[in-house]
Amino acid sequence: MKIISQNTAFGGMQGVYSHPSDACKCDMTFAVFVPPQAVSQPCPVLWYLSGLTCTHQNVMDKGEYRRLAAELGLVIVCPDTSPRGDEVADEATNWQMGKGAGFYLDATQQPWAENYQMYTYITQELPALIGEQFRVDMSRQGIFGHSMGGHGAMTIALKTPDRFKSCSAFAPIVEPTTADWSAPALEKYLGSDQSTWRLYDACALVKDGAHFPEFLIDQGKADNFLDSGLRPWLFEQAIEGKDIALTLRLHERYDHSYFFISTFMDDHLRWHAERLA
Amino acid sequence: MKIISQNTAFGGMQGVYSHPSDACKCDMTFAVFVPPQAVSQPCPVLWYLSGLTCTHQNVMDKGEYRRLAAELGLVIVCPDTSPRGDEVADEATNWQMGKGAGFYLDATQQPWAENYQMYTYITQELPALIGEQFRVDMSRQGIFGHSMGGHGAMTIALKTPDRFKSCSAFAPIVEPTTADWSAPALEKYLGSDQSTWRLYDACALVKDGAHFPEFLIDQGKADNFLDSGLRPWLFEQAIEGKDIALTLRLHERYDHSYFFISTFMDDHLRWHAERLA
Repeated sequence: MKIISQNTAFGGMQGVYSHPSDACKCDMTFAVFVPPQAVSQPCPVLWYLSGLTCTHQNVMDKGEYRRLAAELGLVIVCPDTSPRGDEVADEATNWQMGKGAGFYLDATQQPWAENYQMYTYITQELPALIGEQFRVDMSRQGIFGHSMGGHGAMTIALKTPDRFKSCSAFAPIVEPTTADWSAPALEKYLGSDQSTWRLYDACALVKDGAHFPEFLIDQGKADNFLDSGLRPWLFEQAIEGKDIALTLRLHERYDHSYFFISTFMDDHLRWHAERLA
Repeated sequence: MKIISQNTAFGGMQGVYSHPSDACKCDMTFAVFVPPQAVSQPCPVLWYLSGLTCTHQNVMDKGEYRRLAAELGLVIVCPDTSPRGDEVADEATNWQMGKGAGFYLDATQQPWAENYQMYTYITQELPALIGEQFRVDMSRQGIFGHSMGGHGAMTIALKTPDRFKSCSAFAPIVEPTTADWSAPALEKYLGSDQSTWRLYDACALVKDGAHFPEFLIDQGKADNFLDSGLRPWLFEQAIEGKDIALTLRLHERYDHSYFFISTFMDDHLRWHAERLA
């Protein structure tokens, strides 16, 4: 693991690191905020998965998570959204496919399968590295994310429910198998057999029996992608009768940006901290 | 005035605007955060001046001022750091001169004098526009800034003390006439007669009789520019016997970045809010 940068912030340390990834067969970069409490005790880990076009950096710059994470004693891990590098397949003019658009899945179709193994990377390889390199309590993990990263957080929580004590999302893509901006990517990554797509779709997973006890979702009503890509009401319908609790909050005037995310960041950090205590 | 963007955040509105500037003879861009309180009452105005290489956007993205400004009811105005555009003189490879490095002064030397009238822009033209276009109480103004913008805030407060009720700075250049990274710029903007430089130097202004009642300065001790460019102890020496109060706080491990600024942003906002109440 290589240190790219380390900056003191709110009494803790915001770091950026890179490492050669076996899963993605390229160097991967990620950000970790370590709160001041980690000096004396292992701290719980909260994973933040970012949306389309983002790297680890967007939420690090604009998410405004450090002040309260330092107060609550949370380690915040922010991975990249896809494999990177000149050797990695891409559709350079399509922001919904390839680099910046890994959709947190393991691709099965060429040329994507070669590097796009983000599900394995996020659920296996990176947690092992984090557990090894940072002062963390891996028995207390939560996960959240934005948009494509909200999709990632929810599907990963549903698929590995024993690992996480909490899950939340900002404006998640809850049904990527049918959303305008994700269905074409799923076909390219996973092939034409749509039954394989259901493994990476929160609504389909719930309908097929996956379970996670409760979710918090915040969604802006002035979000341009609400009707075409996000549609949180589909998840509300999917969980009916499933013993899954959903706190879904719709906010007038808020859009899809980090102005929206940062506004509700504190609420999400408190949600997770209560469940990771 | 043209709206570039407006996003709801923390119950208020973060906007970015542009307008043709008479002082700078080019289009200028600036950011304004309007807190929710402005719906029912004119709010005090806090000016944030940014440092070298920055535009209005850096602090808007990374400064983390909106949450508490929304709570305290402060309008936050973030101007650009220089004139902009293809017609504007520049030294493209020198980050300490030209675009992004206006030093908040009125240049007298060509080719700079044509557009580099940032002192007039910040103290006359932009306040008139803000007073006209936003719901603000211009009888309650404070000013702060970072690095070159800390210099700007302190010199402007010292030169127009009746306008401002509060002034603070993050890692300011307190004596630009002698600092490595500013003296060459002052010579190019103002000419070789160094007596004219003193009008844009906080230490020199105080020694020459300018007065402002109190300052808050935060400075990181791991700041790479501390000894060559910033040296807050020079200001501490300059105000001796001058009836000027200085709260100077030095912070172990903090550097010159927005990680430092955002950490102490809340303290500065409260400092100003108390004096603007």
